[in-house]
Amino acid sequence: MITGKNHIGNQLSSLGTVRFKTINPELNKENEFEYFQATEEEINQAVDKAEEAFHSYKNYSGKQKAEFLRTIADEIESLGGDLINTYCSETGLPTGRAIGERGRTVFQLRSFADLVEEGSWVEASIDTGIPDRTPAPKPDLRKMSIPLGPVVVFGASNFPLAYSTAGGDTAAALASGCPVIVKSHPMHAGTGELIATAIVKAAEKTGMPNGVFSNINAKDYSAGQQLVSHPKIKAVGFTGSIKGGRALLDIAAKREEPIPVFAEMGSINPVVLLPKALENRRNEIANTYAGSITLGTGQFCTNPGLILGIAGEELSGFIEELGSKIKEINPSCMLHPNIHGAYEKGKQQAMNQNDVTIVANLDEEIQTNYASQLVATVSGKTFLENSTLHHEVFGPFSIVVQCENLEQLEEIISSLEGQLTGTIISDDNEISNYSELVAKMQNRVGRLIFNGVPTGVEVCPSMVHGGPYPASTDSRFTAVGVNSIKRWVRPFSYQNWPNELLPDELKDENPLGISRIVNGQTNQV
Amino acid sequence: MITGKNHIGNQLSSLGTVRFKTINPELNKENEFEYFQATEEEINQAVDKAEEAFHSYKNYSGKQKAEFLRTIADEIESLGGDLINTYCSETGLPTGRAIGERGRTVFQLRSFADLVEEGSWVEASIDTGIPDRTPAPKPDLRKMSIPLGPVVVFGASNFPLAYSTAGGDTAAALASGCPVIVKSHPMHAGTGELIATAIVKAAEKTGMPNGVFSNINAKDYSAGQQLVSHPKIKAVGFTGSIKGGRALLDIAAKREEPIPVFAEMGSINPVVLLPKALENRRNEIANTYAGSITLGTGQFCTNPGLILGIAGEELSGFIEELGSKIKEINPSCMLHPNIHGAYEKGKQQAMNQNDVTIVANLDEEIQTNYASQLVATVSGKTFLENSTLHHEVFGPFSIVVQCENLEQLEEIISSLEGQLTGTIISDDNEISNYSELVAKMQNRVGRLIFNGVPTGVEVCPSMVHGGPYPASTDSRFTAVGVNSIKRWVRPFSYQNWPNELLPDELKDENPLGISRIVNGQTNQV
Repeated sequence: MITGKNHIGNQLSSLGTVRFKTINPELNKENEFEYFQATEEEINQAVDKAEEAFHSYKNYSGKQKAEFLRTIADEIESLGGDLINTYCSETGLPTGRAIGERGRTVFQLRSFADLVEEGSWVEASIDTGIPDRTPAPKPDLRKMSIPLGPVVVFGASNFPLAYSTAGGDTAAALASGCPVIVKSHPMHAGTGELIATAIVKAAEKTGMPNGVFSNINAKDYSAGQQLVSHPKIKAVGFTGSIKGGRALLDIAAKREEPIPVFAEMGSINPVVLLPKALENRRNEIANTYAGSITLGTGQFCTNPGLILGIAGEELSGFIEELGSKIKEINPSCMLHPNIHGAYEKGKQQAMNQNDVTIVANLDEEIQTNYASQLVATVSGKTFLENSTLHHEVFGPFSIVVQCENLEQLEEIISSLEGQLTGTIISDDNEISNYSELVAKMQNRVGRLIFNGVPTGVEVCPSMVHGGPYPASTDSRFTAVGVNSIKRWVRPFSYQNWPNELLPDELKDENPLGISRIVNGQTNQV
Repeated sequence: MITGKNHIGNQLSSLGTVRFKTINPELNKENEFEYFQATEEEINQAVDKAEEAFHSYKNYSGKQKAEFLRTIADEIESLGGDLINTYCSETGLPTGRAIGERGRTVFQLRSFADLVEEGSWVEASIDTGIPDRTPAPKPDLRKMSIPLGPVVVFGASNFPLAYSTAGGDTAAALASGCPVIVKSHPMHAGTGELIATAIVKAAEKTGMPNGVFSNINAKDYSAGQQLVSHPKIKAVGFTGSIKGGRALLDIAAKREEPIPVFAEMGSINPVVLLPKALENRRNEIANTYAGSITLGTGQFCTNPGLILGIAGEELSGFIEELGSKIKEINPSCMLHPNIHGAYEKGKQQAMNQNDVTIVANLDEEIQTNYASQLVATVSGKTFLENSTLHHEVFGPFSIVVQCENLEQLEEIISSLEGQLTGTIISDDNEISNYSELVAKMQNRVGRLIFNGVPTGVEVCPSMVHGGPYPASTDSRFTAVGVNSIKRWVRPFSYQNWPNELLPDELKDENPLGISRIVNGQTNQV
C-alpha cells in the first residue's frame, strides 16, 4: 500500500529525485520503502490547490465537515494491522502504544466532528439594530468565527498518529474550515502516508474539494521553510523542539504578511515535593515518578525532567529510592537513532556540568537505540546558577534539585522558562501554606497538577496543553481539546447584512439551533 | 493641574532633561505646558512596579476590578471642562467630538466593569474526574482564562480618549487583571496626563496595588522600544500606522521570549458600488460618501479611501456628484502639523502617479493645518498595476476606481492587503448575484457592511475591529467590544486541584453563579 509518493491534493506525485527511507530503531536498520522528497514545484502545487479548495471548503456546513472527519476516523481504523505494523517499525514503540494512540487520534477526529456538527463553536453573537437611536442609529451587527485559510501542520516525531498527519492540529484545522498541508515527519513517513491515504479517501468519499488535504514528504528543512514562507499559507501548527519551532516562528514573523504559528515545544515540567508528602510517602512517590520519567522512553513533552524539594533527610531518602526504582525498569527503544544520539549527548552535557551528582545511571550494555535512564541531583544554588541544567533532555532523564529553603525553591520556579505543566505533591493540606509558591508556579505554566504526574494529557475541553513561551509560541491557545480550533479562526462581523444572505449561524431564525449571544443574552433558539 | 511629569505607578516623576510641548494645530502654536520625557530608569521603575502589582492584581475579584474601572470613568467625568479644553487644544478637533469621545471612553470602561463583575467572561470549563475509568482514571480538569502580565499600551494620535490612555486597550487589559503601562501619545500629552491622573486617583480610592497603571511621556521612539523589549512586559496594544505597528511587532518577535502584539493599523476600507444602486440613487450615495470621507477630517481608521464600481455613465455621474458635494464641505483642522504634512505628502504622491485624474481638489487658500479634501479617479487597470495607489493616505482622501468589468473589480479586491472593513452598496437585491465578489471581499476584511459607510465603529459584543494583516497584526482578535479582553489572557488548567484552593470561578459550588461548561453542558449554577 505504501508508494513513497507525496499526496498533492488527491493525486500521488513523485517529481523529485531525492529519496529517503525510514529506520526501524528496534532492529537498527532501514525499512523497505523509499520516500520521494517533494520538490518546490510539488509544494507550490499543494499550496495552490489548498487555496483553491479553501474558497469552497470554508463554506461547507458543519454537518458536511463532520461527515468528512468521521470518515477519516473510519478509514484510519480500516487500515487495521498495516497501520500498527508500520507505526511500530518506524518508532520502536510497542503495539499497545500504537493502538492506544490510534484510539486517541480517532477520538479527536470524532470530537471535532461532534463540535462542528453541533455548530455553537463559532461563538455567534448578534446585536440587533436600533434604527431610531439618537444621535445615530445603532446598526445591526452579527459576528461569528470564520477559518483563516490554508494551514501547514508539521508532524511530531513522538506522536506519529495523535500529533501528526491526522492529529490534533489537522483535525482542528479541517474542522474549522481550513485546508491542511501536512509536512510529514520523515522519521515515520510510512505511517504518514497510510494516514494521508485514509484522509484522501475520506475526502473523495464525502465530496470534499481536491486540495483540502496534501501530504508532503521531506527530510530537508527547506520544504518546511518554503511552506511557512508561502504567501497563500495563513497559519502554522508545529509540535517539536524549541529550535525547530522557533525557526518557523522567525520565518513567519519576517513575512510581508506575518502569520500565526502555534508551536508546542519543549518543557521540563517541574514537580515540587512538599515536606509532609515526602515524610508520609516518599517511597510511593519515588515509585510513581520512576514510572513517569521512563514512560514512553521519556519521549513525552510532559515528561517530568525537574523535581524540586527542600534538602534534608526525607529528600535524600526519596532520591535514593527513586534511583533504586528507576534502575529496576527495563530500558526501552527510542524513536530513532538520531533521537537516541541527541539523548546521549544531552545527558552527557548535563552530567559534565559542575556539581552534578548522578543518582542512577544504567551503565550496563543495552540494545542499540535503547535509552539508558538517568537521574541526577544538584543543589539549588548549582541549578540556579547554571541555566544549561534548565534545558530539556528529551528522554528518560530527570534532575532532582535539593533546595536550601523555600525561598530558594520559589526563586528557582520563577527563574524557569515557560512550561506546559507544574506539579505539586502535597499531603495533609500542607499546600495551603504554600500559596506564594503556587502563584509563582502558575505564572510559569499552562497546567497545574495536584498529587499526580504530568505525563498523560487528557483530551477534553478543560485541558490546556500549551503555556508561556517556550512551552508554546502563543500561550493564548491550547493545542489539545476542542478549543484548539480557536487557533485557526478569526472573528468576523456583518453589519446590516440582509438576513437571507447571512450564514445560517447568524440568520434571525437560527436554523441550526445553535447557542448564540443575542443582545448580551445567551439564547438557544 | 498638568505637571508635565510621568506617572510611575502612583508617583509623579521627572528625572529626565528632555522636554517637549504639544501643539495647538488650530492656532498653529505650542501649548503652554512642558512634558518630561521618561528616562530609561523611569521606564524600568514603571515595569518593575507593574510586575510587582501583577502578583496581587491578577487575583483581585471581578467586583474589585469593576469598582476600579467605574471609578476611573467617574474620575474622567469629574475632569469636566479641563479635559475637553485640553483635548481640543491638542487636536484641533471640535468640542462636540471631544464630548462624544469621552462618552465612548467611559462607556467602554463601564462595559468592561459589567463584564468582569458578572464574571462569565473567563470561559470557565469543568470536566469532572472518573477515578475508576479504565484503562486509566480520568482526572478532574478545570479551565479558565487568566491574565498574561504587564501590558504596554500605545496611545493613538487620532483618538486621544477612546483609543489612548484609558481607551479600549487599557480598559480591556485592566479588566482582565493585567497592569498597564501607557506610552502616552506625544501629540496629546496633556490629555494623557489628565486621564492618567484620573486613573491613579481611582486606583488609590479603590485600593489597587501601586504600579497597576503608569503613564510614560516620550516624543522619541526609544521609550516604546525599551518597553516592548523589556522581559517583564507580556503583551502590547497599539493603534496607529503600519510602519509604527510593524516596528513594534518586529521588536516583540525578536525577543528571547516573543510576546503578542495586537496592533490595529492602516486600512483603505474598500466600498463597492453595485450597478442598480448607482442607477437608483447615485447622488444620494455621493452625498453620503462626501460626508464619510471628510468626517473627523478623514482621520478615522475606517475612512473610505477606495470606492470601486464598473465604468460607465452611472459611475461617471457618481464621480462628478461626489466631486461637487465634497467641494461644498468646509475644510477642517488636522490633529497636528506633522499629520497635516504627511497628508499633503501622501496626497501629492498619489496625484503624481501616472493616469490619476483629480475629481475634486480644494485649491483655495485655507487655514494652516486644515486639510484640503481630495477625490481622484483611476481606471481599474491603473489601480491594479500600481500598488502605491493601494496605500492609505491618512486624511480626507479617496480614490474612485473605474473597473472595466466585474472580473477586474474582483481581481482588485483580491489584490488588496487586509482591511478593517469592506462595504457593498446594493439595491433591489442585486447583491444576490455577486456572491463571488462578496466572498473575495470577506477574505480581505474583518467586517462587511451593507448599504452604509465604514466610519462609525459601534462598541458592542458583535463588533469586529481588526482584520487580516495589515488591518491588524493578529486577525484572531478584535480591538473593540468586550471580546477584546481575550487579547490579554491565556487559558489555564487545574488538574485534580483541591476544591477549596481553586479560584471561585472553578469551585464546585460556583459561588459567583457564573455561566460555565460542565462536562460539555452549559450550566448556570
